[in-house]
Amino acid sequence: MGLDGLGSSSYGPEAALTILIPLGAAGLTYLGPVMGCIIALLAILYFSYRQTLAAYPTSGGAYAVAKENLGEYPSLLTASALMIDYVLNVAVGVSAGVGALVSAVPDLHPYILPLCLAIVAFVTIANLRGTGEAGWLFALPTYVFIACFLGVIGYGLFRIVTEGDPQPVVTPPALAAPAGAAGLWLLMHAFASGCTAMTGVEAVSNGVSSFREPVIKNAYMTLTIIVVVLGLLLAGIATLATSFDIGAMDQTRDGYQSVLSQLLGAVTGYNGFYYVAMTSLLCILCLSANTSFVGFPRICRMIAADGYLPKAFAQPGRRLVFTAGILFLSALACLLLVAFGGITEKLIPLFAIGAFLTFTVSQTGMVVHWRRQEKKRPGKLTMNAVGAVATGIALVVIMLAKFTEGAWITLIAVPLTIGVLKAVKNYYNSLDKELRQPGPIELDEVEPPTVLVVMEEWNRLSERAVKFALTISPDVVAVHLVRLGGPEADEGEKALRDQWCRDVEEPAAAKGLQPPRLMLIPAPYRELHEPLLRLIEKLDADAPERHVAVLIPQTVKEKWWQNILHMNRGGRLRAQLLKFGGPRLTVVTVPWRLSREGKPSA
Amino acid sequence: MGLDGLGSSSYGPEAALTILIPLGAAGLTYLGPVMGCIIALLAILYFSYRQTLAAYPTSGGAYAVAKENLGEYPSLLTASALMIDYVLNVAVGVSAGVGALVSAVPDLHPYILPLCLAIVAFVTIANLRGTGEAGWLFALPTYVFIACFLGVIGYGLFRIVTEGDPQPVVTPPALAAPAGAAGLWLLMHAFASGCTAMTGVEAVSNGVSSFREPVIKNAYMTLTIIVVVLGLLLAGIATLATSFDIGAMDQTRDGYQSVLSQLLGAVTGYNGFYYVAMTSLLCILCLSANTSFVGFPRICRMIAADGYLPKAFAQPGRRLVFTAGILFLSALACLLLVAFGGITEKLIPLFAIGAFLTFTVSQTGMVVHWRRQEKKRPGKLTMNAVGAVATGIALVVIMLAKFTEGAWITLIAVPLTIGVLKAVKNYYNSLDKELRQPGPIELDEVEPPTVLVVMEEWNRLSERAVKFALTISPDVVAVHLVRLGGPEADEGEKALRDQWCRDVEEPAAAKGLQPPRLMLIPAPYRELHEPLLRLIEKLDADAPERHVAVLIPQTVKEKWWQNILHMNRGGRLRAQLLKFGGPRLTVVTVPWRLSREGKPSA
Repeated sequence: MGLDGLGSSSYGPEAALTILIPLGAAGLTYLGPVMGCIIALLAILYFSYRQTLAAYPTSGGAYAVAKENLGEYPSLLTASALMIDYVLNVAVGVSAGVGALVSAVPDLHPYILPLCLAIVAFVTIANLRGTGEAGWLFALPTYVFIACFLGVIGYGLFRIVTEGDPQPVVTPPALAAPAGAAGLWLLMHAFASGCTAMTGVEAVSNGVSSFREPVIKNAYMTLTIIVVVLGLLLAGIATLATSFDIGAMDQTRDGYQSVLSQLLGAVTGYNGFYYVAMTSLLCILCLSANTSFVGFPRICRMIAADGYLPKAFAQPGRRLVFTAGILFLSALACLLLVAFGGITEKLIPLFAIGAFLTFTVSQTGMVVHWRRQEKKRPGKLTMNAVGAVATGIALVVIMLAKFTEGAWITLIAVPLTIGVLKAVKNYYNSLDKELRQPGPIELDEVEPPTVLVVMEEWNRLSERAVKFALTISPDVVAVHLVRLGGPEADEGEKALRDQWCRDVEEPAAAKGLQPPRLMLIPAPYRELHEPLLRLIEKLDADAPERHVAVLIPQTVKEKWWQNILHMNRGGRLRAQLLKFGGPRLTVVTVPWRLSREGKPSA
Repeated sequence: MGLDGLGSSSYGPEAALTILIPLGAAGLTYLGPVMGCIIALLAILYFSYRQTLAAYPTSGGAYAVAKENLGEYPSLLTASALMIDYVLNVAVGVSAGVGALVSAVPDLHPYILPLCLAIVAFVTIANLRGTGEAGWLFALPTYVFIACFLGVIGYGLFRIVTEGDPQPVVTPPALAAPAGAAGLWLLMHAFASGCTAMTGVEAVSNGVSSFREPVIKNAYMTLTIIVVVLGLLLAGIATLATSFDIGAMDQTRDGYQSVLSQLLGAVTGYNGFYYVAMTSLLCILCLSANTSFVGFPRICRMIAADGYLPKAFAQPGRRLVFTAGILFLSALACLLLVAFGGITEKLIPLFAIGAFLTFTVSQTGMVVHWRRQEKKRPGKLTMNAVGAVATGIALVVIMLAKFTEGAWITLIAVPLTIGVLKAVKNYYNSLDKELRQPGPIELDEVEPPTVLVVMEEWNRLSERAVKFALTISPDVVAVHLVRLGGPEADEGEKALRDQWCRDVEEPAAAKGLQPPRLMLIPAPYRELHEPLLRLIEKLDADAPERHVAVLIPQTVKEKWWQNILHMNRGGRLRAQLLKFGGPRLTVVTVPWRLSREGKPSA
């Protein structure tokens, strides 16, 4: 848990620096103040999320808070913002990871998009198989990442203190010539982009239920560690980037180096340590994407349990993972990556909106929560109110700054998602209403049904069907659908009638049963159900009170290739009868398992 | 009909010339004799096929001849050779057509394979929709093709006669330097390749039934026209190619020009006439591929009617075309084109084998046919015997010459196909044996079945199922599969039992019916059928004589999106019960059409 809180420390500063590119070297002087604002916001977020954790320890997270405190629409707003967020978290995490990879191995630069999709596919498969047992696999790169980058930052600060103006080991690429002046607008942009650095905080509170006992204490500790490490990393990166003149580069261009890659190069050079650090960065970014694969199915399950998503999302698959949620997340993330070519910078504006929307709604919910408590706790209320206002302001800034750069997509996607969720809920509601059975069963008609046995010829399949039909009703009619016309057909008809009389009617009469009738119905076309439905209509008109059961003998295929060799006429007829038949029509399948039962009698 | 007989005149000489490439200019001197042999063979084939047409006017073709006269395995041999032939005819026709296209428009050369696949897709779609009405569409390019190329040949011969050694208008590319000496082996190769020019003859006799009355006269005329035009074209092309020093080029190389394209250029130059002629060539080659789309489904239907292919091949689709055959042909042709990169020359060796195998078997069948006739007709017998020997010799030559160049693929594919056909027949035979019902119906057990109604909760779906169950048997058990354990489940259980007692058992008892029982079965996992099958096993043990019917209430979806919103648990349970249940188990689907029936009662 909390891994994506750390992963976001790598693309947050980079995103902010990307915005400052037009300022050239001058832009670096503004990085400090921008990052200061971001760290201050992070601190506010920390204290207000501590309170959320304490108040909603079992099923924490913004959706639960909004559902309980703000009502249906705010909770749907949060749900859709969260879902979109999780998808973007995968896309951004993977694309930033590939960004780190192509920084370290420039030869891979032409393959950014295929690499992204391959990583998503890998993570998807891993999650479909269940990843529960691999705790150390998650912990190791995290610790290596923290150790490497805090180490580099420490060493870099040490060099700044001892050398004054330290020379970079590998000089970062020259910064672009200034193309514009710094303005509030540009700084707002940089702030908005940098804010993506704290998208990971929400994950902790959504994942509370998976912490070990004592839950709240562990969640507190994780949140504290993440926020402290994140703060240190952000502050350190900002300081070092300013000292070593490191700016952002364009990921679409060949020769791209991420900010952290340049920073490692400048402080320590391209040595073994560099590759260890970059590998841990790649791993932690992929793991941060993986967090979504835990969180998204879980939130989908909560939403589906409330009836706003198809029930399949609430249904654990064979390995107890929520297959539907995982596949849906994977498909959406791949779609986004393809749409934006796997370039982190282009995905950032979409991401920031969703995250801060969630923050704001969740904090507002907490304010309502505290107001509803009987025992007023003005301190806690104020804390969450400050959080709500601060994230709300940030949200407005991001929305204004990033609108044309892609934030509009999120602004369209959120209401669209809400609409879909609401439509699903309405469907299930009307279904419930339609199917609800308020009173006792009505038993005015218990006459046996008219049973129609559909047959192609008189064989053991039809024999079994007729035998079963006689056990459920005395009124059995065998229906033979005649495909051909002409003299040949007439001859076959006569033979069948004779056979029927000899092999069915006479034995039945001998047993004292009402003999089953044989009807021959012309069905010249492919659609067998039409003449049958006409017959059923006539039967209905004659005896409107009685049910009609259509018996379809069907061979059961056990091997896939048997499906090629059989026409499955029975299955098709069944589907059509079910679809077009009236409410009194029931379809009975009498199975025959090929070559498993009844050895050939001759 | 017969169109592909003309199309093959374009790739036959080209294929022969391709073999002569290593001889350089000297190769051209051998083209005349090789083409002479081929035209002689064509004449033999003409006279023996006239007799086939007369003897088998209704369902002519090699398969019918072999089936009647030679027995099962020769007929299967013919069937598989014919099927493979039809597939290769599509592949060769389309690739030669694209060869003509890239000769005329060299910019398209890099797109040979995509163009081939696009044409196959187009022809497939046209045939799936039915092409019956478009007679003029077929006739026009044929007449234009015949007029253009006979015209060019006439004009070229006129120039040769008047000018002696005529100068080409556009000089064809220089012939390669001789890389080897002419030998019998090489000439055999050239003959084998050139023989593909006559692959179209078989199509006429397979298509006899589609000729207008008087059938035989029309078929005769078509065969005569094809053979005469084909002979003229082959002789003319051979003469002109020799005079104008035209050789074959490598289709895989950029700048490729087919032999006919060079010939047109040499005789008349690259003018408007050239483009009209090349367009008609492209059309006629695509139409020759189209012939397979008529013939292949028809032969598949004949084979399927005899039980050697899945029954789906004998089943006309909605537009009275044989969908299965068309799609199968299209898939195989695309596979071949992809495997050989759409290069005509590589496909030729495979093609020649299949065609001559068919010729030989068919002629042999005719020999047997004449011997069986009471009225001996030694003249006709001799004619077909000559045909059989000549095509047999050609077959051996082709096999020897082309073995390593791909003919081995056909030699493997033929027995493989025979094996598959025979296996299909065996399957249907054993199926017939298993299902055949020799005697009267056995009616020792007509007790009503035990009816199990599967329900998720007590609603209108389960009400309808229980009502239907009561009409077919007094012994009804409602089975509620309980997913959860624990105190919550216990409470739900109690509520359901109370409801059952009040809403079902009491009304049933009041009507004097045996009240349906309620059973709660724990089914903690996803596989609902297992606990149900265990219950059925127990019921079977208690009353081994009785049937068990499982009623599954199912919502019928009318819109595709409803499938997303429903879990289809009922459908899955039904499939599993049918697959794993015993012979006494019958599955009944009680349908509920969503929002069409029973308006919400509340």
